[in-house]
Amino acid sequence: MLEGLGSPASPRAAASTSVVGSSGPAACPPPSAPRCPESPVPRRGGMRASVPQKLAETLSSQYGLIVFVAGLLLLLAWAVHAAGVGKSDLLCFLTALMLLQLLWMLWYVGRSSAHRRLFRLKDTHAGAGWLRGSITLFAVITIILGCLKIGYFIGFSECLSATEGVFPVMHAVHTLLQVYFLWGHAKDIIQSFKTLERFGVIHSVFTNLLLWANGVLNESKHQLNEHKERLITLGFGNITTVLDDHTPQCNCTPPTLCTAISHGIYYLYPFNIEYQILASTMLYVLWKNIGRKVDSHQHQKMQFKSDGVTVGAVLGLTALAATIAVVVVYLIHIGRSKTKSESALIMFYLYAITLLMLMGAAGLAGIRIYRIEEKSLDESKNPARKLDSDLLVGTASGSWLISWGSILAILCAEDHPRYTWYNLPYSILVMVEKYIQNLFIIESIHREPEKLSEDIRTLRVVTVCNGKPVASSCLKSGGVAGDVAPRGRDMPPAAKGNVCMREGCGKEEEKQEESSWGGSPSPVRLPRFLQGNAKRKVLRNIAAFLFLCNISLWIPPAFGCRPEYDNGLEEIVFGFEPWIIVVNLAMPFSIFYRMHAAASLFEVYCNI
Amino acid sequence: MLEGLGSPASPRAAASTSVVGSSGPAACPPPSAPRCPESPVPRRGGMRASVPQKLAETLSSQYGLIVFVAGLLLLLAWAVHAAGVGKSDLLCFLTALMLLQLLWMLWYVGRSSAHRRLFRLKDTHAGAGWLRGSITLFAVITIILGCLKIGYFIGFSECLSATEGVFPVMHAVHTLLQVYFLWGHAKDIIQSFKTLERFGVIHSVFTNLLLWANGVLNESKHQLNEHKERLITLGFGNITTVLDDHTPQCNCTPPTLCTAISHGIYYLYPFNIEYQILASTMLYVLWKNIGRKVDSHQHQKMQFKSDGVTVGAVLGLTALAATIAVVVVYLIHIGRSKTKSESALIMFYLYAITLLMLMGAAGLAGIRIYRIEEKSLDESKNPARKLDSDLLVGTASGSWLISWGSILAILCAEDHPRYTWYNLPYSILVMVEKYIQNLFIIESIHREPEKLSEDIRTLRVVTVCNGKPVASSCLKSGGVAGDVAPRGRDMPPAAKGNVCMREGCGKEEEKQEESSWGGSPSPVRLPRFLQGNAKRKVLRNIAAFLFLCNISLWIPPAFGCRPEYDNGLEEIVFGFEPWIIVVNLAMPFSIFYRMHAAASLFEVYCNI
Repeated sequence: MLEGLGSPASPRAAASTSVVGSSGPAACPPPSAPRCPESPVPRRGGMRASVPQKLAETLSSQYGLIVFVAGLLLLLAWAVHAAGVGKSDLLCFLTALMLLQLLWMLWYVGRSSAHRRLFRLKDTHAGAGWLRGSITLFAVITIILGCLKIGYFIGFSECLSATEGVFPVMHAVHTLLQVYFLWGHAKDIIQSFKTLERFGVIHSVFTNLLLWANGVLNESKHQLNEHKERLITLGFGNITTVLDDHTPQCNCTPPTLCTAISHGIYYLYPFNIEYQILASTMLYVLWKNIGRKVDSHQHQKMQFKSDGVTVGAVLGLTALAATIAVVVVYLIHIGRSKTKSESALIMFYLYAITLLMLMGAAGLAGIRIYRIEEKSLDESKNPARKLDSDLLVGTASGSWLISWGSILAILCAEDHPRYTWYNLPYSILVMVEKYIQNLFIIESIHREPEKLSEDIRTLRVVTVCNGKPVASSCLKSGGVAGDVAPRGRDMPPAAKGNVCMREGCGKEEEKQEESSWGGSPSPVRLPRFLQGNAKRKVLRNIAAFLFLCNISLWIPPAFGCRPEYDNGLEEIVFGFEPWIIVVNLAMPFSIFYRMHAAASLFEVYCNI
Repeated sequence: MLEGLGSPASPRAAASTSVVGSSGPAACPPPSAPRCPESPVPRRGGMRASVPQKLAETLSSQYGLIVFVAGLLLLLAWAVHAAGVGKSDLLCFLTALMLLQLLWMLWYVGRSSAHRRLFRLKDTHAGAGWLRGSITLFAVITIILGCLKIGYFIGFSECLSATEGVFPVMHAVHTLLQVYFLWGHAKDIIQSFKTLERFGVIHSVFTNLLLWANGVLNESKHQLNEHKERLITLGFGNITTVLDDHTPQCNCTPPTLCTAISHGIYYLYPFNIEYQILASTMLYVLWKNIGRKVDSHQHQKMQFKSDGVTVGAVLGLTALAATIAVVVVYLIHIGRSKTKSESALIMFYLYAITLLMLMGAAGLAGIRIYRIEEKSLDESKNPARKLDSDLLVGTASGSWLISWGSILAILCAEDHPRYTWYNLPYSILVMVEKYIQNLFIIESIHREPEKLSEDIRTLRVVTVCNGKPVASSCLKSGGVAGDVAPRGRDMPPAAKGNVCMREGCGKEEEKQEESSWGGSPSPVRLPRFLQGNAKRKVLRNIAAFLFLCNISLWIPPAFGCRPEYDNGLEEIVFGFEPWIIVVNLAMPFSIFYRMHAAASLFEVYCNI
């Protein structure tokens, strides 16, 4: 989880890296000492904190974890109705955490604007525009949710403690300032006062994670209650169906308004949950970037072009429309009667099986295209991208757990109503589709955008260092292929010094050298219809389709269409409580997976 | 969790990294093209798998996770007595996994010995001697455990399924071959057939993790049953105390022998658990190393010297003796009567508080010594070390969770018997001590051994590349300070080509250059009594003391002395089931933490 921030190499160390492997026809020309006169003298101790990097990291991460487990325990205590621990204790704790984060953010923003003229390093990969856009959207809904909660508090003010009124107000303020903070500073690479800032950022990460866990818990309790109500309607008296009710013990003054508000709150929770987790991932990347030495990587500006993706978009939008229809029908039918429930389940499974098969096929096609055009990946250091990959695989495990549960239940159950058999292909497809999709996304985000590769070839022969042409490939091979040279002139000195120390240009380099220096251009074995723009178009269609499908598959579980509950088979095999615990633990990750995959696919789409 | 293996840079790419930051007095001399004639021509495609590194990693890690969650679900099903899932299903699954791993290991070992003459890269940091030693010790005990289980099966053979006899036999064979495998191949850096080998290694990692989880579950069930028996003795009828009994429904032929065997099994489980987790960490490092490009890092041979650590050793051995005494008394007294239980608890808390305070003080002293002598850390890439740090922080979270639970319970409980107050300082100290100890260990394992730093200074001015002295610091600054030059002549070509591409020599480099090139040797500000050998002696005493203390603190929870159960307060506040679930989930990590910290401290001790 916690990783060394790596590569703290001084400019000079890299500069003197010059043992040449010179035998063989493809060797580099001997470097003719291409000096860049304005490259920086490292400031003596300027970048060094009083505590070494690794230690400061451990100090802060341990602090964050301790705060986090404390919060988790309070959440657990509330969830299990622990004696003496009320909701107000939990809210007090969360409010205190938010207040602390607010103060820290204010200090940081104030300090930053005071030192505005100082050159600040930025990680161009972090806090992408679309990410900040979507977080703003979710934040707006979170603030609306806050307003509804305040209304709820006013309605029930007789019998609610003051903390339940303070919490939403504080949460709204916190959301506002945090979005402002993320817009301005998500790309920062903090270099000064590292220890203090590290504590602030990690505190923010775990505060958001706890707010996420709080949202998830509220949502789960709500879903569970709805499920129990359905069971009661269907007449299952044998399962322990005590509603876990947290509604206040007094009357709300305008009753209809209150009911509307309570309902509204639960429709907005999924967005709040996404907001919190997105914020914490952005802050985590900020934390990983503290004290990092980066090369000023020229990040290709992402472009959103909508031409030529008609097929993907139409198919995706059809899927989206179908999903909404299915969810509405499902929610109307489920729990009304046994036959209606069963038909709703069968409808859902058939819909999901079709969609998952299409998605799997699209993913496979994408991977196949990548495999035909053999090209090695950019494996340079990039905390934002690494987090994306890890989250994809990690959160997919949540739904794999649920799927295995369903499969096991089907295999072990004594009698199988007809609808349960649809569950088997559905569960298997959920696993397979995520496996394939992760491969596709991870390969996509590790490929360099096409345009850059072109640039490299152009820049190969003559590389310009400080205006003078130098017959050497130094700049190129130091940074990741093609990232640096175009900005040679206007690069800030601090970044420039670090240019030659990036790892990871290896294979790409090697391959290109084989073709350009060795004189044998490697044959591109793509079928003609898959070359150049056509290939790009196919990939973009796939990405667009998968993007819309992931949005589609996010909707059902987020808004209460959970066949894992309603199916009933798993509850019989594992027992009601164990299965509910498994689903409630794994489902939030499964839901987050869809939104995160959609976000990654959007990025993939823009980069193709 | 899953991280890019990074730095796949070709030798040539690094060789051409030669932009020089030349302004300023401390700049490197211009590199005079120091070629090493025997450095390798990269074999065309020789090191490249058909699938890119990152993709192969994702392919295999996803496979591993899917197998793992399937196993977890079977374990859960068995634990909650799911309908239709018996112990034999679980054991079948585990046996199949072990068989698969066995076949893979045989294939790998066979292939390795067939290609023995090929040069093989090794990661000198992985699979240290003491690690292999301790794994062998634990493996021997695991095999004894296997024999006892076979005896148990024979005794109850009438009513046990065949799988319960096959499983221990297979487990013993698996253990034997795996230890042999780890002795011979834990240091391997696999470069060929990467995809197939990646699947094999990740399969082995997760097989061992599942065997670990299986051991933990058995042990937890046993502990829980013992706890429930005590509660029944003490007359707590209000808590649901249904024994979760898995003893067979028939009689064992020689009854006394059978009882002895059942008891023996539970005393050996803790060692089996440690064996499985150790094996999986070693295999994980092997997996992380697949396809890695390393510099041939000269690893200083660790030396175990026992002179001059009398104080630490005596204090530590005293702690160990005291622990054993306390555990014996505790286990005799607990659950006999209310007063005896309380006195046992008070005794345990007083003992633990004393020990933890001493350990915290020792850790602080160690950190203080490091802080006085300001020295930046070696942050080069090292999967084994990174895993060590992550595990320390990650597994400590388990006990932080339990500690917060205790603290919350004390704060929220309605009435406090006298002995519960001792729980408060104990829980706080558990958190603080782990926080401090982690800082000490992580800083220690990131410091270079003293001797190496000396070497660097000697090697600074003249670096020999292929026998010819070159006035350049190329070799040195490319690799991590001082790791390469001494082996310049006899280095294998593949390793040599990669020499100049390691990241992470930065700060150390910079600092040394300031002192050696800038002409101002940095003042060492250590008090005289803490210089050189004296300082080393103090640090070694601290490490020895902490090592023995961690072994001491491993014993109580591993052998059934768990005040978190017996204390009773948490169970009242959280409820019996929720608290038992929390403890059973967190305790295995807490126990593993102690053993892992002890292992790390042993390494620290040998390196000081």
